[in-house]
Amino acid sequence: MSDILSVKPLTASAFSPFGDVIATDGHAPIVINQGQSERFDDLANLQLGAAEGKACLSIFATKPLVLPLLLHQMECHHLGSQAFIPLSGQPWLVVVAPKGKFDRKQVRAFLASGKQGVNFAPGTWHHFSLALEPQSNFLVIDRKSQAIDCEEVEINPPLCLERLP
Amino acid sequence: MSDILSVKPLTASAFSPFGDVIATDGHAPIVINQGQSERFDDLANLQLGAAEGKACLSIFATKPLVLPLLLHQMECHHLGSQAFIPLSGQPWLVVVAPKGKFDRKQVRAFLASGKQGVNFAPGTWHHFSLALEPQSNFLVIDRKSQAIDCEEVEINPPLCLERLP
Repeated sequence: MSDILSVKPLTASAFSPFGDVIATDGHAPIVINQGQSERFDDLANLQLGAAEGKACLSIFATKPLVLPLLLHQMECHHLGSQAFIPLSGQPWLVVVAPKGKFDRKQVRAFLASGKQGVNFAPGTWHHFSLALEPQSNFLVIDRKSQAIDCEEVEINPPLCLERLP
Repeated sequence: MSDILSVKPLTASAFSPFGDVIATDGHAPIVINQGQSERFDDLANLQLGAAEGKACLSIFATKPLVLPLLLHQMECHHLGSQAFIPLSGQPWLVVVAPKGKFDRKQVRAFLASGKQGVNFAPGTWHHFSLALEPQSNFLVIDRKSQAIDCEEVEINPPLCLERLP
């Protein structure tokens, strides 16, 4: 028997326990480049350098998912933040739980627009790869080191994402 | 009297003296997330930590330019790399010159597709903000510190970008 997890629109305030929403909305830009550009500066608290970590830039090409969807597993990275920014302009899903001991009752699901990225704070539990549309590429900024920093947890019984808001 | 600067298609090999092309083409992915994602890993040599620098993630919203265009100025950041990734899927221009003493004869112009970002190596001279289409947002990953690290050089007489390849 799966619990139903409701999906809410992604907002900076609702997401603040888990990290940053990466978007221009709600930020005042700095005008640079002789007036040609607006810089929305420093939109995420990137934490990449712990334990000899280095900044790593990657592209994830993800297969789309179809609702209803059962969530069986989440993961977290204790030593570094991880940012996902959609490159395909399509809405996508973000599923998170607070850092610390995993608590299925604290899992939250958000619908991000194609103009919203997120940066998971170190230790924040998150589900992987929740693209909704085909051809979904994401730019990922995370911490790289010799040792793999990824803890996984099973969700048992699974949580169910039934429909979008 | 302006010299004409010809524009070439952006390729990793042509751009290698100046930094990295950020794109999936030519890279073999790692399959992750239980087969749901392909990770094109570590596509740019991000250099952000020198002199107590930190990784900074920003969005630049840039006004489009119209050709023919006179280039009057370039800039470089000696202590850190700077990556630009298009978020709007539109082609854009990249203009660079080798690090060291600025040499107008060494300036090169590239047409990037909407699926190609670049990472300027530290010290590489580059022109700012060369979006060609409206609504061009770029994700920027660069180095932030207390001291501003930006040297500018005048191009006199200016160089002219006349047409795309």
